[in-house]
Amino acid sequence: MLNIFVSELVGTATLILLGCGVVANVVLTNTLGNNGGWLLINFGWGIGVFAGASVASTSGAHLNPAVTLGLAVAGKTEWSQVPVYFAGEFLGAFVGAVLTWLAYKKQFDTDPEPGGTRGIFCTGPTVPSPLWNTVTEVIGTFVLMIWILLSPAAKAGDGGVPEFGNSALGYAGVMFLVIGIGNSLGGPTGYAINPARDLAPRIAYAVLPIRDKGSAEWGYSWVPVVGPLIGATLAGLLVHVLPLS
Amino acid sequence: MLNIFVSELVGTATLILLGCGVVANVVLTNTLGNNGGWLLINFGWGIGVFAGASVASTSGAHLNPAVTLGLAVAGKTEWSQVPVYFAGEFLGAFVGAVLTWLAYKKQFDTDPEPGGTRGIFCTGPTVPSPLWNTVTEVIGTFVLMIWILLSPAAKAGDGGVPEFGNSALGYAGVMFLVIGIGNSLGGPTGYAINPARDLAPRIAYAVLPIRDKGSAEWGYSWVPVVGPLIGATLAGLLVHVLPLS
Amino acid sequence: MLNIFVSELVGTATLILLGCGVVANVVLTNTLGNNGGWLLINFGWGIGVFAGASVASTSGAHLNPAVTLGLAVAGKTEWSQVPVYFAGEFLGAFVGAVLTWLAYKKQFDTDPEPGGTRGIFCTGPTVPSPLWNTVTEVIGTFVLMIWILLSPAAKAGDGGVPEFGNSALGYAGVMFLVIGIGNSLGGPTGYAINPARDLAPRIAYAVLPIRDKGSAEWGYSWVPVVGPLIGATLAGLLVHVLPLS
Amino acid sequence: MLNIFVSELVGTATLILLGCGVVANVVLTNTLGNNGGWLLINFGWGIGVFAGASVASTSGAHLNPAVTLGLAVAGKTEWSQVPVYFAGEFLGAFVGAVLTWLAYKKQFDTDPEPGGTRGIFCTGPTVPSPLWNTVTEVIGTFVLMIWILLSPAAKAGDGGVPEFGNSALGYAGVMFLVIGIGNSLGGPTGYAINPARDLAPRIAYAVLPIRDKGSAEWGYSWVPVVGPLIGATLAGLLVHVLPLS
Repeated sequence: MLNIFVSELVGTATLILLGCGVVANVVLTNTLGNNGGWLLINFGWGIGVFAGASVASTSGAHLNPAVTLGLAVAGKTEWSQVPVYFAGEFLGAFVGAVLTWLAYKKQFDTDPEPGGTRGIFCTGPTVPSPLWNTVTEVIGTFVLMIWILLSPAAKAGDGGVPEFGNSALGYAGVMFLVIGIGNSLGGPTGYAINPARDLAPRIAYAVLPIRDKGSAEWGYSWVPVVGPLIGATLAGLLVHVLPLS
Repeated sequence: MLNIFVSELVGTATLILLGCGVVANVVLTNTLGNNGGWLLINFGWGIGVFAGASVASTSGAHLNPAVTLGLAVAGKTEWSQVPVYFAGEFLGAFVGAVLTWLAYKKQFDTDPEPGGTRGIFCTGPTVPSPLWNTVTEVIGTFVLMIWILLSPAAKAGDGGVPEFGNSALGYAGVMFLVIGIGNSLGGPTGYAINPARDLAPRIAYAVLPIRDKGSAEWGYSWVPVVGPLIGATLAGLLVHVLPLS
Repeated sequence: MLNIFVSELVGTATLILLGCGVVANVVLTNTLGNNGGWLLINFGWGIGVFAGASVASTSGAHLNPAVTLGLAVAGKTEWSQVPVYFAGEFLGAFVGAVLTWLAYKKQFDTDPEPGGTRGIFCTGPTVPSPLWNTVTEVIGTFVLMIWILLSPAAKAGDGGVPEFGNSALGYAGVMFLVIGIGNSLGGPTGYAINPARDLAPRIAYAVLPIRDKGSAEWGYSWVPVVGPLIGATLAGLLVHVLPLS
Repeated sequence: MLNIFVSELVGTATLILLGCGVVANVVLTNTLGNNGGWLLINFGWGIGVFAGASVASTSGAHLNPAVTLGLAVAGKTEWSQVPVYFAGEFLGAFVGAVLTWLAYKKQFDTDPEPGGTRGIFCTGPTVPSPLWNTVTEVIGTFVLMIWILLSPAAKAGDGGVPEFGNSALGYAGVMFLVIGIGNSLGGPTGYAINPARDLAPRIAYAVLPIRDKGSAEWGYSWVPVVGPLIGATLAGLLVHVLPLS
């Protein structure tokens, strides 16, 4: 249990540090990656998943409460372990957000437009619509979860530890997938597809002494929590029905 | 047979969702990936193939009637299974197109230039010419098919299930290839290289209640069907002749 | 011998089709990839190597007379086979250049600035200097060759067939390397690093009925032949000296 | 010992040639990659690590004094070998910087703004701050080191030779990681994360007869040495504490 908690904490912190970090690099003015584009952001998040998953292989590298839930629904993770995974994931995501702020401390302190720094920490919709924003998050997370459940490596790995965790490059598969979800399904809402990825950094944004920060937009905060949980649950249920074993 | 149908349906739906999704992200105005460039689009389609192939590994992950035909010509898929593959591929592509529309519903509804949304669903030529557009599609699909037939992994795998389907990262090979075909041969016609990828989303565009949509350009619709089928057949015939076994 | 000739012909044609194809996509006006940038071009050439190497695995996938020479100098290819490799490589590169022209036929025919299409086929220096342009090509090819000779997979494979030819993804290593050489060392001369890649398409440019074409710049044509041969020879000699066996 | 020295020298020279090379391509005016963007730069450095690590596999491919130190702290490299690693790494980095200058000799000689060429060789902060610049380098190097120590492949490999050194593609993992650190944590200081990468090219910049060069900025030179050493040491100590064996 302690192993799961620490492993998920270290892995999710790494994911969020690299994920929020690339957005900081693109959004903040006094950086080398300022205005670097959407593909750069997606590579940042994808490699964040690769790095975080690599260092958290002993716990199966969920890094995402929706993935934990989907694996439990599919019968691949024990329900009794779910709260431990959740705790490691949320605390790790908070630590990663704090580290991002420290790495870019002087850029936060000198940014000429500090009101827009919330987007470094959490997602928001380009066209606000509780229903359709949730639909987008459901679809994106469904693709992530169905891939984890049906790709050859993951199918082979019971007990929540996918087979691809055993090779140096194995986690590159999920890296490519996350880059692709960002490229293709991230346009409307910024693809949270992970409750911990969105909620914990949003809390960090709210409590950290960030210079001239704006609102944390709590009114939207439930969408990137509920949507991913629904999408992953649907995928977990579907694999019980599909004749693809 | 049911397994093949369902597997190809799920895989092709995933491919088209991520493929049409990246174009939606780039073409539609109110997205985070608007105007994201040609490399972003190609990564989107390539990772779409990676994701779709991963989840359809039990049926060999054709996802493309031209690939099914080429494998049958080369003697690696039974002709009796071809109609089942075709049905799964076309229906899956239709489902993927509908999901793309749902994921970007609010962006479709608010786009200031809705007349150009056909390009999200199906391809079109930059310089119309039935003959030369077909030549381009033949060449692009020939490269895809010859790679599937001659690369070490695919050669080892008879029965239509390439060996690379058995590893987490195996499908990354075809991902790189599709990105490359888009980069290098997609300039004139948008590289359909797959009849299902073009025709089924074109039908979806025609029947879905998309706001202020334009013509489905049926006059061009045969090119991305005929060209890929010719290119794959040529590759399937060539491997019978080449002394490369 | 026939196997080597056909395999290298097919592989080099694939390489050049995708390599010259990406430049056509970026340089020609009426394409979807027009003005797509340097990274797009490098991905195009890198994936061209990946695709060409995959389909030519039975002959070891040299695809490059400089690589053939370097492997012979290092004692990993028999000198008697060298002319057969050269013939397949040069003829394949010519075929690939013709296919590129056919794939982009209407774009060549309608380009508003057809004088600049030579760059689609062969390289040229940004700052002309026979000595220093040669130095740049020597260094770039040296990196390619030393990687082939010292990376773990290639060291294991004697007889000119590197071990990485046996896996679906194995050739991705050389793909990454070629993308990197383009990124990092392609700036001054366009990184021919391959005599067949430059000379055969240059001949194709000279003999094909391309609309309003310009000079083939024969005065520069020896640099991308001599430079790569020197660079690969130096690497082949160096591995006899280095205590890295 | 001689093997380690030569291997690290060749590997680090390759890394720095491709790494400094991509910056030269982007920064210098008369190149094909001029103004190519941040993602291009990161791919250049990442593939530099891939290429350098591949050719230095016999010594474990540290290529970085901070990695050598971190492995020693973690008990995976013998302290007696550390000076040999350091010597190979620093000398190799110097050689790589000289080769970069030779490959881009005419571009250095003709650049209209030669005062800015220092950035080709060594890093500098966008917002100068000794403390916070060091923090950024500590965090970036910590991520590199913790990945090397905890990812499945590296954990399996004792004696300083990670398991992933034994496959053609194995070093692609660290390539992705370095691209990601650049994308996400390189914004404030240019991610030295390697004392040899920064100090040796800085010395090369100071001693080479580069046309109209500016100051080598020695006042900042200690940050990219001290920061990475601290970050790697922290990661090396942490793995003794974490229950993740």
